[in-house]
Amino acid sequence: MLKIARRGEVDSFIVMEVMREANLRTSRGEGILHLEVGQPSTPAPGIVRAAAVAALESNRIGYTDALGVPELRGAISRHYRDFYQADIPAERVVVTTGSSGAFLLAFLASFDPGDRVALASPGYPCYRNILKTLGIDPILLPMSADSKFQPTLDALGQYHGTPFDGLIIASPSNPVGAVIQAATLGDLSAYCRAQGVRLISDEIYHGITFGAPAATMASIDDQSIVVNSFSKYFSMTGWRLGWLVLPPSLVQPVERLAQNLFISPPTLSQYAAIAAFDAHEELQQNVRRYAANRDILLNGLPEAGFDRLIATDGAFYVYADVSALTDDSVAFAQRILAEAGIAVTPGVDFDPQRGHHFLRFSFAGATEDMAEAVRRLKNWRK
Amino acid sequence: MLKIARRGEVDSFIVMEVMREANLRTSRGEGILHLEVGQPSTPAPGIVRAAAVAALESNRIGYTDALGVPELRGAISRHYRDFYQADIPAERVVVTTGSSGAFLLAFLASFDPGDRVALASPGYPCYRNILKTLGIDPILLPMSADSKFQPTLDALGQYHGTPFDGLIIASPSNPVGAVIQAATLGDLSAYCRAQGVRLISDEIYHGITFGAPAATMASIDDQSIVVNSFSKYFSMTGWRLGWLVLPPSLVQPVERLAQNLFISPPTLSQYAAIAAFDAHEELQQNVRRYAANRDILLNGLPEAGFDRLIATDGAFYVYADVSALTDDSVAFAQRILAEAGIAVTPGVDFDPQRGHHFLRFSFAGATEDMAEAVRRLKNWRK
Repeated sequence: MLKIARRGEVDSFIVMEVMREANLRTSRGEGILHLEVGQPSTPAPGIVRAAAVAALESNRIGYTDALGVPELRGAISRHYRDFYQADIPAERVVVTTGSSGAFLLAFLASFDPGDRVALASPGYPCYRNILKTLGIDPILLPMSADSKFQPTLDALGQYHGTPFDGLIIASPSNPVGAVIQAATLGDLSAYCRAQGVRLISDEIYHGITFGAPAATMASIDDQSIVVNSFSKYFSMTGWRLGWLVLPPSLVQPVERLAQNLFISPPTLSQYAAIAAFDAHEELQQNVRRYAANRDILLNGLPEAGFDRLIATDGAFYVYADVSALTDDSVAFAQRILAEAGIAVTPGVDFDPQRGHHFLRFSFAGATEDMAEAVRRLKNWRK
Repeated sequence: MLKIARRGEVDSFIVMEVMREANLRTSRGEGILHLEVGQPSTPAPGIVRAAAVAALESNRIGYTDALGVPELRGAISRHYRDFYQADIPAERVVVTTGSSGAFLLAFLASFDPGDRVALASPGYPCYRNILKTLGIDPILLPMSADSKFQPTLDALGQYHGTPFDGLIIASPSNPVGAVIQAATLGDLSAYCRAQGVRLISDEIYHGITFGAPAATMASIDDQSIVVNSFSKYFSMTGWRLGWLVLPPSLVQPVERLAQNLFISPPTLSQYAAIAAFDAHEELQQNVRRYAANRDILLNGLPEAGFDRLIATDGAFYVYADVSALTDDSVAFAQRILAEAGIAVTPGVDFDPQRGHHFLRFSFAGATEDMAEAVRRLKNWRK
């Protein structure tokens, strides 16, 4: 029997196992509410879909430049001007195959095997799994509810382990939905510059915020790497399209890696996505729905006994401390699915240590589903 | 200044530099003939484009299973039955983001850093570049025109270096277009099984052959990994869709890697590709055009002094030994572009050692371009 590589032993997502069980129950006709999925329930904006149809008629849909079609790189550059009043030349913008492709390219261009990259725990599990796959050591910084689980300058100052080579931050974060304020972004940038640490800022939930818009690290630090995506605010998950804003010195290395590893991002998605920046009216309707959904969960979950919530600033998640209710969030989530018909995500994906005391509720779905979920949870907990 | 990772120093493609220069000249209004591009000049089949339009209307285009939508995995499984009379269950078929994504997943699941993977030189440059990026050592086996540059049992038997962990073969090959016969596939499989070597068979040019159809390793060795793609025969390059046929033991490791590295392949491409297996009539027209183009080059190039050609069995390339004409294929290709207005690819991408004596002519383009290229080359060489 031929061997399987050690790096094939990377963790799977528990959320995917939850989705499988939830989908099985849905297919059996059980009326499952899907509060586990991390994607919009809406399709791409109408003008994006129309642009895709037009491209299918007029375009050969061949390979593109490895860094993306110039029209889309230009549109993203203008988005930084319009949305953030930031001057990001198109030459620093790289279109990628989802934020997944962006992380892979960013990590490969920045870190060699054996390098160490710090990140807050809880956090998006793919960070640490991709890093491990590439031979890079993730250093989990266990953060607390005091900072909404975001890394702080204090926590970094108190870190006395082997110095690390990179730091990943996310604003708004997954699973917490916490936004990092511009001043704190500046502090983190200054820390990283002083320590010679490459800073990677995950901004894939930008646009979905419930207070002031989130600030971009691209405005603050041109040596940082910014990752963004068309999946969340732009509601284009399955189109597999994201982007990087790179320091000028990393553009060529990323181009070479992208040529070899991807050839080019999906062409039809690229041409369609150019129209996405003209769809803010439709997209803001989605954000208003998320805001309404958020209110229903933040008000309703405490009445059902889920009263230790982090008030989310952005994205479409509520992270709930359920330590008063269970010591095993996986079994607890299985019971909620089986007994209340609601799929939620146990925290262990996001935090291997403390995640057995947490659940993530996603409110990306329909507003009536949120209200029904609260009703069912109240009944279930009676 | 923050560091750039050593693996960001991977080679770029010289073909991409040639394409850039050729495209610049085209944009200036020079009538450049594009015999450098490795992709069909045709769009996807009409029914594939129609299926994409239908999916845009009816489907949310969200994430799919990491291994691909079941309908497409089933269609690929039936393709093996219809095209090869091979019984490949859908559970062993994994849909990927192009063959690029397939190679990345196959290499990660099969090989750890420091492992060694043998492959014929000349060959597709991304093999060795992706391997190096992942810390795997490519072992180039310099092959000769006697075997149409394919690896032979003799060459493997005469190899006395450190044993290798994997062997990559390609049939039809790039840049030569040589098909490996079923009996030789069996020999290579037996060698690999005896030596404990993981065999990876690149079959992305299957369907484009000018004699008997190419045999698939999937029929021969269920411990081998087969890579295929919708880009070439199915004429869907920019859709970024390929597939793997995996040994059963590798399906779960690849699923975990795919969840973390890709989430899922492009959704619209997946739904559209289901229709590709009903488009053989249109696709066979493309193959007839390639066959006509091939005849024009194989007959015409010798009259222009390019008389040391490998008669291609498949794909859409002619690899020409130009050692009688130049010692520097890069400068020679630049002269052909500047003086004859024809873009061709110097061999150095495919063979770092001997490629300065070779050129690759692609005949994926229009038939009239092939005839015109021969005319121009004859005039240029006068």
